Amino acid sequence: RSRPLPLRDATVGQGFWGDEQELVRTQVLPFQWCALNDNVPGAAPSYCMHNFRAAAAQNRRRTAARSQGDRFVPPVYTDRGFNVLPDDPERPDPDRFYGFVFQDTDFSKWIEAVGYSLAHHPDAELEARADAAIDIVCAAQQENGYLDTYYILNGMDRHFTNLKDHHELYCMGHLIEGAVAYYEGTGKTRLLHAAQGFADYVASVFGTEPGRLRGYPGHEIAEMALVRLYEVTNERRYLDLAAYFVDERGRAPLYFEVEDRTRAKREGATYVPNDNQPMPYAYYQAHEPVVDQREAVGHAVRAGYLYSGVADVARLTENERLADTVRALWRNIVDRKLYVTGGVGATAFGEAYSYDYDLPNDLAYSETCAAIALVFFARRMLELEPKSEYADVMELALYNTVLAGMAMDGKSFFYVNPLEVRTEAVRSHDARFLHIKDVRQKWFGCACCPPNLARLVESVQEYAYTLADDGGTLFTHLYIDGMAVVHVLSKDEDDEDVALRLEVESGLPWNGHVRAVVHVDEGDGGADDYGDGHDGKISVPFIFAFRLPAWAGDQIEVAACTTVPAEAQGRVNRRVRDGYLYLAGTWRDGDVFEFDFPMPVMMLEANLRVSEDAGKVAFVRGPVVYCAEECDNGSRLHCLHVDAARVGERAENVTVEPFDFKAGAEALDGKGTGGVEPVSRCMVRLRVPAWRDEVRDAKPLYSRWHPPVRRRVEAVLIPYFAWANRGENEMRVFLDIS
Amino acid sequence: RSRPLPLRDATVGQGFWGDEQELVRTQVLPFQWCALNDNVPGAAPSYCMHNFRAAAAQNRRRTAARSQGDRFVPPVYTDRGFNVLPDDPERPDPDRFYGFVFQDTDFSKWIEAVGYSLAHHPDAELEARADAAIDIVCAAQQENGYLDTYYILNGMDRHFTNLKDHHELYCMGHLIEGAVAYYEGTGKTRLLHAAQGFADYVASVFGTEPGRLRGYPGHEIAEMALVRLYEVTNERRYLDLAAYFVDERGRAPLYFEVEDRTRAKREGATYVPNDNQPMPYAYYQAHEPVVDQREAVGHAVRAGYLYSGVADVARLTENERLADTVRALWRNIVDRKLYVTGGVGATAFGEAYSYDYDLPNDLAYSETCAAIALVFFARRMLELEPKSEYADVMELALYNTVLAGMAMDGKSFFYVNPLEVRTEAVRSHDARFLHIKDVRQKWFGCACCPPNLARLVESVQEYAYTLADDGGTLFTHLYIDGMAVVHVLSKDEDDEDVALRLEVESGLPWNGHVRAVVHVDEGDGGADDYGDGHDGKISVPFIFAFRLPAWAGDQIEVAACTTVPAEAQGRVNRRVRDGYLYLAGTWRDGDVFEFDFPMPVMMLEANLRVSEDAGKVAFVRGPVVYCAEECDNGSRLHCLHVDAARVGERAENVTVEPFDFKAGAEALDGKGTGGVEPVSRCMVRLRVPAWRDEVRDAKPLYSRWHPPVRRRVEAVLIPYFAWANRGENEMRVFLDIS
Repeated sequence: RSRPLPLRDATVGQGFWGDEQELVRTQVLPFQWCALNDNVPGAAPSYCMHNFRAAAAQNRRRTAARSQGDRFVPPVYTDRGFNVLPDDPERPDPDRFYGFVFQDTDFSKWIEAVGYSLAHHPDAELEARADAAIDIVCAAQQENGYLDTYYILNGMDRHFTNLKDHHELYCMGHLIEGAVAYYEGTGKTRLLHAAQGFADYVASVFGTEPGRLRGYPGHEIAEMALVRLYEVTNERRYLDLAAYFVDERGRAPLYFEVEDRTRAKREGATYVPNDNQPMPYAYYQAHEPVVDQREAVGHAVRAGYLYSGVADVARLTENERLADTVRALWRNIVDRKLYVTGGVGATAFGEAYSYDYDLPNDLAYSETCAAIALVFFARRMLELEPKSEYADVMELALYNTVLAGMAMDGKSFFYVNPLEVRTEAVRSHDARFLHIKDVRQKWFGCACCPPNLARLVESVQEYAYTLADDGGTLFTHLYIDGMAVVHVLSKDEDDEDVALRLEVESGLPWNGHVRAVVHVDEGDGGADDYGDGHDGKISVPFIFAFRLPAWAGDQIEVAACTTVPAEAQGRVNRRVRDGYLYLAGTWRDGDVFEFDFPMPVMMLEANLRVSEDAGKVAFVRGPVVYCAEECDNGSRLHCLHVDAARVGERAENVTVEPFDFKAGAEALDGKGTGGVEPVSRCMVRLRVPAWRDEVRDAKPLYSRWHPPVRRRVEAVLIPYFAWANRGENEMRVFLDIS
Repeated sequence: RSRPLPLRDATVGQGFWGDEQELVRTQVLPFQWCALNDNVPGAAPSYCMHNFRAAAAQNRRRTAARSQGDRFVPPVYTDRGFNVLPDDPERPDPDRFYGFVFQDTDFSKWIEAVGYSLAHHPDAELEARADAAIDIVCAAQQENGYLDTYYILNGMDRHFTNLKDHHELYCMGHLIEGAVAYYEGTGKTRLLHAAQGFADYVASVFGTEPGRLRGYPGHEIAEMALVRLYEVTNERRYLDLAAYFVDERGRAPLYFEVEDRTRAKREGATYVPNDNQPMPYAYYQAHEPVVDQREAVGHAVRAGYLYSGVADVARLTENERLADTVRALWRNIVDRKLYVTGGVGATAFGEAYSYDYDLPNDLAYSETCAAIALVFFARRMLELEPKSEYADVMELALYNTVLAGMAMDGKSFFYVNPLEVRTEAVRSHDARFLHIKDVRQKWFGCACCPPNLARLVESVQEYAYTLADDGGTLFTHLYIDGMAVVHVLSKDEDDEDVALRLEVESGLPWNGHVRAVVHVDEGDGGADDYGDGHDGKISVPFIFAFRLPAWAGDQIEVAACTTVPAEAQGRVNRRVRDGYLYLAGTWRDGDVFEFDFPMPVMMLEANLRVSEDAGKVAFVRGPVVYCAEECDNGSRLHCLHVDAARVGERAENVTVEPFDFKAGAEALDGKGTGGVEPVSRCMVRLRVPAWRDEVRDAKPLYSRWHPPVRRRVEAVLIPYFAWANRGENEMRVFLDIS
């Protein structure tokens, strides 16, 4: 079992991920700040900080009334809508709640990303802005610790009466995530204490003890957030609360149904049963006890967050049954419900996992947030047990569906990531395609994906490494330019500890050359017990475990592409297990690892059970999935056929071509939709032998079949994450073969 | 220009269509009667006759009140719902309206089918039952002629205030269609006069004259119904009203918008603009003036009914601009929006025509009623100008999508006719597939398709022949066992007319052998001017025009497969024009036509613009489209690949095999869903050389492409209309080629 490195102990250097983080830091975070303060011209207001201010003002009035001996009258429950907007958008009432029920999380996601950013990029102005925002948020907190402005402003008499749909525990979860990150990034505890206060209140309300509510989150995240809070505070009660939420979920009598009936009775309304199909509560993963769940179902973001929390609880409570649950859910996803792009959640209906092997390309939902949730889940599986398969999927999701969520200028976003887009379908406005966009959208009122992407990108180093619980093994899961620091405890209590720094230079995702150097940083005192004396350098016993990426080929062969001089010197031994190359021995400053991972072009086919992909192939090289865009290949991409036999014959028949990708597109409307600023970036494209059907204009709708008339062409494939950066056009990941 | 034969002058004999009519007469009509009287156990009540009875009772109360000098208080507008059901289904209020706003049409469609049936199958009991129902309906009519029970029972103060959605003129249209058919079938005028009364009232309310409403139907049908009323009564005002409806539709200011605004104002409600996409009023074909329309859009049944009415008006008013309109709409449908099965209306969203070349197989809507509407449209195009293309499409829709609408036992129905069904998709309950069923459904509360199918099947002979306006040419469009009678006017006023009877024996749809015999029936008096004396037989000058089906091949070659002894005798000359073989000359009793239409198996491909059909073929033989079902070919039909090259090489590589199709399936639930009684029928199946991919269970979701492992199989294809008669299973029309 292992854990990510503390936030400050892993850093991203220059290179691919440095660029991504820079984009988020310089573009997304400032924009996000404006958005949650309703300062984006032309965009729907968030009302996020407005709501916190309103709640804070209410607290001030309560305090003032009390100090004067007056009775404070809290508001009645006024707004019950899922998304409430002011009657006059020009003049929102300063005392009322607006926006979605979960609008508080806009702040929490922003502060989380800010926390990550500040850990490595000190920025006094940003930190001051964040502290001021935290002051407002904390001022909104109730005396009992409760902190969700929807109910604070609409009447606390109804709080915790609609866990199923009103996201209170989801807001708590995000608040915890943000608070922990900000604490880790800055060392400041104000927000962390506020989050603890909320969690403590929740812990006093929910549970199996008599008199408590046996509820759990309608939208999961609290489970993994509470585990994180436990790991940073070491307060067991947070882990217990997380374990309770996991354990209680889906048990009979079903809490969500009980809650709906109780609320209906209280309000004198008719109870309306949930009618989600095929199982009413599968949308919430509450259709059966979690421990019994074996199929990934329902809303894919909810599911991914739950499974992450379950893996956390399984690891920390050493619950093998829960561990089996997440292994089974993982298998179901990876064997039957995963897009080749690392996306999940195939159906727009409920933004949900569809049935086994149902992976439509043109109607895919594959939400950016769902891929992010899969990254969360994968890392937690790695923490549970280091198997490279988890990291392979994590990397796939990260480089493809997650990154596809953001334009190359960092200013527009995809919520939905189809594997095939036809412009005419998007333009048809047919309901089938309403969720499909062929250009990225500007910030939304319901801004889930952009800030979620921001917090993940800003913390990507937390996914690159984990350290075994015994402190003796560092796992490298992702090869990212940067640095990981491990503090190795001295065996002798009197001695200073030493730090091992692993400095990584990575060619990924464009080539498989990775070089890592070990630095041994001694403490101020001696480190005698490590010394071997003869050259003055100390030797530190440690195990480095490096993932052998599945895309590089067979594990044993890939391991053989690694050069470790320390091994030749007899200080280190190697072993391959579960997709990791374990290098155990004693390490000296300057030791080097050279990896030369093969990065062949892989032409993949889907399992035959996936009817949508029958007769099609997709191209992958390293962690990057490729696609064909209209601007490189002309329209009607269904007329483009890969010469599979020729590709299969010799790898050299596909040309791998580094190039300078030039993004940039005119906006399609006055709101700037589809506009991308001219930016360029080095990447790699593929030239694949192919044919193109000749469209004969005179042909009727149906005619006698004739062998197709085709001309040889080269299909030009670009990285999937870079699509839709050059204007509105068709795209396909899976291409027909002939 | 030509017209169908009077109802009694065309008959269906034994054989294919005789069987279909028998099924409708013995199964559907009695069931339908029970349905509209709410006597079907387990089925949602129609409330159709209930509503007419309630309205009749109201009239009686009014009359009684008046006779006693009392003031009758009409009801206020109580129910505004589109589908109103009683609070207690056990005790519906006898004075209130229930069901859909258009529920009156359940009666109208039934009486129409009954009218057709009685014309050829006298049935005193059925006729008495129909007359009694007509009495109730007529008793419901208002003094001014108005006859829609929804407003009669909910308050006449609001009638004609929501033409867009409330179907009053649609109800009138169906009433006219039913009344005309019943009059033609029985000679009885009571219902016809009621329908005329309604039409006269409507004619007094709508129009361009000052003070009139410039409205038109929200759901079309009145246009073609009024034309029919004109043709049976010769009252020009009905044609004028139809022409007005066509002319006014879609003109600015848009009536539907004006109406919505007016109603909102009157009711103190907020005006909510129509938000159908991409054009708000395209759903109703009211987005632009009809004469300017060039693309088939919106609700496909509405569209088909409108285009039929436009073709009627164009023909009767000799309006070339409108004729060009329907020609252009026809071209758009046939060249870009027609399924190979003759279905139209590709998208479930609005049950509508989708964009050009968007013809999804698994998500098709292709409503049975839309195919029926296309049959109506096609025959009216034939009336406008005899071109075989219209009849080809009419025949295609009739034999495939229309007939697929009904199970072989006549007891369950498809509303939606996809070209590909995967059972797992249907069972998933995913919203994408909610409209897709893999077994036919029992009668619905909103019973549009089954009775529509009944009225079309019972009148199919009206689509087989048309007679030129000059009375001198009989067009045979469909080759159906049966008889057509033409009354040839004597040139000499003193002489009796003679009747030419064409007696047809047809092998269709299973083979192309058709034999037709001419009978000359002299009147009681002499017919001297026809006589040629030398053998005592009279000779009648006349032109027979026979369609040369496109499925038989090139017109000239197909024409050559026709033997006409009278031609050899020098009495007759032939000419081929627009897909018809015109045989002009003088005819004698006993003259024979022998057709030997080639009926090759056609392996069709779709135009390359249809992305859904890329790399696929469909099989058609004669007018029948074939499909593969799981029960003949195993599951995972996407793994079945036609050996297109081998089929293309030699026609004999496909086996054409007559066989006895045995229908029969157990019901899937207590309501009988999916149950089909064991019935059998002779038909033809195809055995096609094919391959099957071997599914290897151990394969991961994605793996390196390998040339497929396949085994040779024979794909067994059955007629599309016969699918889903042997239990729940997969089906495909378009099959992959390899």
